[in-house]
Amino acid sequence: MDLRLSRSMLPCAVLLATWSAAAQAAERPPNFVVIFADDLGYGDLACYGHPTIRSPHLDQMAREGMRFTQFYSAAEVCTPSRAALLTGRLPPRNGMCGQRRVLFPGSKRGLPAEEVTIAELLKQRGYATACIGKWHLGHLPPYLPTAQGFDSYFGIPYSNDMDRVSSSPPGRAAFLAPQIEYWNVPLLRNTQTIERPADQHTLTRRYAQEAVRFIHEHAERPFFLYLPHTMPHVPLFASGEFAGTSRRGLFGDVVEELDHAVGEVLKALREANVAERTLVIFTSDNGPWLTQGEQGGSAGLLRDGKGSTWEGGMREPAIAWWPGTVPAGSVSHELASTLDLLPTFCALAGVEPPADRPLDGYDLSAALKGGKSPRREMFYYRAFELMAVRLGPWKAHYQTQTGYGQPRPEKHDPPLLFHLEIDPGEHYNVAGQQPQVLDEIAAVVARHRKTMQPAPSQIDD
Amino acid sequence: MDLRLSRSMLPCAVLLATWSAAAQAAERPPNFVVIFADDLGYGDLACYGHPTIRSPHLDQMAREGMRFTQFYSAAEVCTPSRAALLTGRLPPRNGMCGQRRVLFPGSKRGLPAEEVTIAELLKQRGYATACIGKWHLGHLPPYLPTAQGFDSYFGIPYSNDMDRVSSSPPGRAAFLAPQIEYWNVPLLRNTQTIERPADQHTLTRRYAQEAVRFIHEHAERPFFLYLPHTMPHVPLFASGEFAGTSRRGLFGDVVEELDHAVGEVLKALREANVAERTLVIFTSDNGPWLTQGEQGGSAGLLRDGKGSTWEGGMREPAIAWWPGTVPAGSVSHELASTLDLLPTFCALAGVEPPADRPLDGYDLSAALKGGKSPRREMFYYRAFELMAVRLGPWKAHYQTQTGYGQPRPEKHDPPLLFHLEIDPGEHYNVAGQQPQVLDEIAAVVARHRKTMQPAPSQIDD
Repeated sequence: MDLRLSRSMLPCAVLLATWSAAAQAAERPPNFVVIFADDLGYGDLACYGHPTIRSPHLDQMAREGMRFTQFYSAAEVCTPSRAALLTGRLPPRNGMCGQRRVLFPGSKRGLPAEEVTIAELLKQRGYATACIGKWHLGHLPPYLPTAQGFDSYFGIPYSNDMDRVSSSPPGRAAFLAPQIEYWNVPLLRNTQTIERPADQHTLTRRYAQEAVRFIHEHAERPFFLYLPHTMPHVPLFASGEFAGTSRRGLFGDVVEELDHAVGEVLKALREANVAERTLVIFTSDNGPWLTQGEQGGSAGLLRDGKGSTWEGGMREPAIAWWPGTVPAGSVSHELASTLDLLPTFCALAGVEPPADRPLDGYDLSAALKGGKSPRREMFYYRAFELMAVRLGPWKAHYQTQTGYGQPRPEKHDPPLLFHLEIDPGEHYNVAGQQPQVLDEIAAVVARHRKTMQPAPSQIDD
Repeated sequence: MDLRLSRSMLPCAVLLATWSAAAQAAERPPNFVVIFADDLGYGDLACYGHPTIRSPHLDQMAREGMRFTQFYSAAEVCTPSRAALLTGRLPPRNGMCGQRRVLFPGSKRGLPAEEVTIAELLKQRGYATACIGKWHLGHLPPYLPTAQGFDSYFGIPYSNDMDRVSSSPPGRAAFLAPQIEYWNVPLLRNTQTIERPADQHTLTRRYAQEAVRFIHEHAERPFFLYLPHTMPHVPLFASGEFAGTSRRGLFGDVVEELDHAVGEVLKALREANVAERTLVIFTSDNGPWLTQGEQGGSAGLLRDGKGSTWEGGMREPAIAWWPGTVPAGSVSHELASTLDLLPTFCALAGVEPPADRPLDGYDLSAALKGGKSPRREMFYYRAFELMAVRLGPWKAHYQTQTGYGQPRPEKHDPPLLFHLEIDPGEHYNVAGQQPQVLDEIAAVVARHRKTMQPAPSQIDD
């Protein structure tokens, strides 16, 4: 099978393979910042083709760094996506998925303590760690960030559309003219509620301020900052500085404020003189929430959005920035995922990833320097169901289901097959012409299933 | 009505209005180069968000110039779009549209001699003029480029899928494995056929070579080069250097060769030391031909494609480049159209546009310097039918019809209404909430209809 690897990049990859992450990490290891948007779609930034949303700071970040075009979140909705990012493991392995799809304010559980997070791993190497933003991996004390390797936490513990007040306008009316008091969401510092309802107008700005302070306070030692923004998840709230200023309506206002907040973080890294020793990753937890109408984002040319295992649900905008290390102005077509952050950070920091459990990520450090990604496949789960598998440029759908509104999945035997590099919109099923590709994917699935021991759901329980 | 004009740009626009195009043009006027792709969609370039097509030269052109996000061709198919570009007039005014949609090898007519083209206007000012590429405005001698103001012509006189040989494989099979001899298309120099069938593998390269030669030969005087490429219209042909090299299949190979050909032109302008006195416009004649499957392009997040008056049919990638004059790295959200090239070039060259007939274009010279466009509306015609009208950010559809496959238009009363800056994908009809916008658009339509005297079709005749 022709995987369409670019031959011209091969010498580069070989060269980079000789570069030893461990050797560099023996000195002071690099800082890591992960900025995670909520429900931002593949097509929602100017540098990914949106016609009216302005994203000057993210565009600049891309010009100074690397823009990925085939980068995946690990799940199609929020809670499993976040669990996978922090653990490098597919959600069924630790039960952070289920019929309810995400955790709710009434949920009793969260990310199990025996899971090993990026924060816990980096603390072994002396990193300062902070989580600033939306957590959504368990809001009760045993599950909060401070119990999962983070020195500190500031943010809301679950989605900003939860804790809906019964007196709020019915149905979607509350979203169309959102008021803070419609959602009684708490704002926490560490484990304490400091504000309720959280003033959602100011969350994006306050997260950025907290991040800037953390960077300046920890510039002298390695740090890991996990910054999962609350926006642009509905209900949409912008601060006074941004409300009403974009061409794209309230959604645009919110994304443009988010863009500004990214710029504040990069500026702080420069001002603290740590830009050249800091890898920043910007991406999103899942695709756009299309059923929110004008208040939902856009997956660009990709099919469907949040909640779905069509490309629009899991392929994300993703920008890597590390001046002097990540080549400026580069575009990477390599396969990559949030699942890869844990192994990549471990390699760059000189920390051993957990060896006692299956991991689903790959070390991207060569890809970040312009080389190849070791990732060849992507598994698209919806709760505990393996819906689709990507191998090289090919994607086989065993089951399909729109993100919202289609009650049951449609099963496909033979699976639907798309060549994602020729047909990123998943329009032209070529299963009939490529039986050998289906065989090869079936073999990959068989190997994968042998490694998959699903854990009990922490969400449905 | 809030047209969402950016207030912050107003002082800039006022400043620029004082800049006198005529004063500058009194010296040697600038050169103009129009590079026109065929069936390239809004989403088909890397700088417009395509995930796998590489367009390094056009991306670079955008970084050195201005990328438009709301730029329109004047029609949804080839012949009317080209007639409108060269005359600054909507196709019904000169009959370059009709039930057959475009001209065919059996057509007897073409662009009427009494129409005034950009080339004819600029010749008044001493410009050297050349047309290199696909003409499609009449292949008989009275209608060829050399009869319409161009000093010279090199190219194919109509589409590359015409003159189909009866012994070629049936239906779409010929497109899936295209051979030159399946289409007996002539290649002309001036009015003489010099090759038949044209070697389509080499057209993109030969057009670029001809363009480079023209630039070097005319560097000492003002020139107008109209360079309408044959690609990426099906049948797709790439040269040996590009065939099989892209991730996007044959369509990607062809677009990447086209991108390279654009780079050759910009390089020639620099080498001839005329870059700072040359305005280059790159755009496409209409949207992607979606019914061609993997061999058709992508309109990105826009709805439908070629043949349709949904946005995907007429909104185009468009890049303006004029080092030292067009601000580098700028993105313009201003409304603009190929209809505006004639008035813009006239203003910059100090030539009076025709005063004896209605024109449909606006002078974009302020917009090209980072200011405002005078354009507030766009009329979307399909043949002689006014299908839709854009006013500011709003678009009203009086009739809708997919580009291909829907036999008759669906009429809408009240019209469908979309806010294109919030909802570029035309998903959310807001006619019910915006009656005053519909009234305002109706008034614009009434004024427009008073100016519209349709000419007899030159295509159906």
